[in-house]
Amino acid sequence: MSDTPETPTSLPVDDARNERHRERMVRKKAVMDERIANAQNERGLLLVHTGIGKGKSSSAFGMVARALGHGLKVGVVQFIKGRVSTGEQMFFQRFPEEVRYHVMGQGFTWETQDRQRDIENAASAWAVAKALLSDPEIALVVLDELNIAFKHGYLKVEDVLADIEARPVSQHVVVTGRGAPQALIDAADTVSEMGLVKHAFQSGIRAQKGIEF
Amino acid sequence: MSDTPETPTSLPVDDARNERHRERMVRKKAVMDERIANAQNERGLLLVHTGIGKGKSSSAFGMVARALGHGLKVGVVQFIKGRVSTGEQMFFQRFPEEVRYHVMGQGFTWETQDRQRDIENAASAWAVAKALLSDPEIALVVLDELNIAFKHGYLKVEDVLADIEARPVSQHVVVTGRGAPQALIDAADTVSEMGLVKHAFQSGIRAQKGIEF
Repeated sequence: MSDTPETPTSLPVDDARNERHRERMVRKKAVMDERIANAQNERGLLLVHTGIGKGKSSSAFGMVARALGHGLKVGVVQFIKGRVSTGEQMFFQRFPEEVRYHVMGQGFTWETQDRQRDIENAASAWAVAKALLSDPEIALVVLDELNIAFKHGYLKVEDVLADIEARPVSQHVVVTGRGAPQALIDAADTVSEMGLVKHAFQSGIRAQKGIEF
Repeated sequence: MSDTPETPTSLPVDDARNERHRERMVRKKAVMDERIANAQNERGLLLVHTGIGKGKSSSAFGMVARALGHGLKVGVVQFIKGRVSTGEQMFFQRFPEEVRYHVMGQGFTWETQDRQRDIENAASAWAVAKALLSDPEIALVVLDELNIAFKHGYLKVEDVLADIEARPVSQHVVVTGRGAPQALIDAADTVSEMGLVKHAFQSGIRAQKGIEF
């Protein structure tokens, strides 16, 4: 669509400001072009989404959509969630040829209350993850809420990192969850810390379909 | 899948630790159940993803997938990007019945270098956004990179907020982009600040398909 609106929201023309803007953007374009030219390496990245704010998992699932848009194949292992089907699970399971989607775990840890069962689930989930990390057809592997398995001591970070490092050279991996261990952060190419500025849940708003799950 | 792996990565059984874990999780479950019971309000949320780290847009697109999984309809307006087709655009445009996907803007601002044209583009994009914000069939509206339009003075935040506040009561809105203005943060229900811990781009890794775009 490209309807011409009544532009009530645009600002008045200001030639001097426009010219300063143009000059600044010419300089910025030169900087960005140079930076892009210098960034020649193309290889699989290890990305970590951590922190207490929203967006760690949803950002990984946005990357799944992005990868599918480019015709790439994706593997997903959800380590902890699973008591109810999430929207992302229901959606991406529509594309079994393109997305290998595995929900391990049997709910959050405060639902199971059984550490030994959680350890067994985590080990099974890691076996599935390892198969994805060995498959050169898979361009992107999402290890959702893996950090929770480290936090509770369900998996050893050094074992996990060894399998991640042994993956096909062009494969990307995204690990999500609060409290990423330092060894994972050290090994990662890109680390995003999702910070909580404010959250609707704090002011008594119920978790909602399509937003929280 | 639920293959039994050789569990090289699980830890030895420790009954005392397991019991402490169980007790802690029982307490945590009580806290979480109470919090969920108290969070009764269900209404459309305004979410803001800001900060300099990765994940602002991809997290919004993960929410799109989540909403589609629940059978909800979604509207997307990309305000700034658009010089090349992104993976998310190519993917979500596969579902024209479920996603109304509009790419406005004609590249990043350092590509156009023409402030007046950017202002006109932003006004056209806002007219499209306003139509989505008036449609009660749309459960989630993503206003991707809208914050950049505020930063450069292409749109007035008070006009935008008036249209957002007038939306259908159950409609969710996600605004992404660095440098969210304070008025938008004040109006939002949930604000996530994506912080940059480290980024592959800084160490000379090229922006890659399925990860950055």
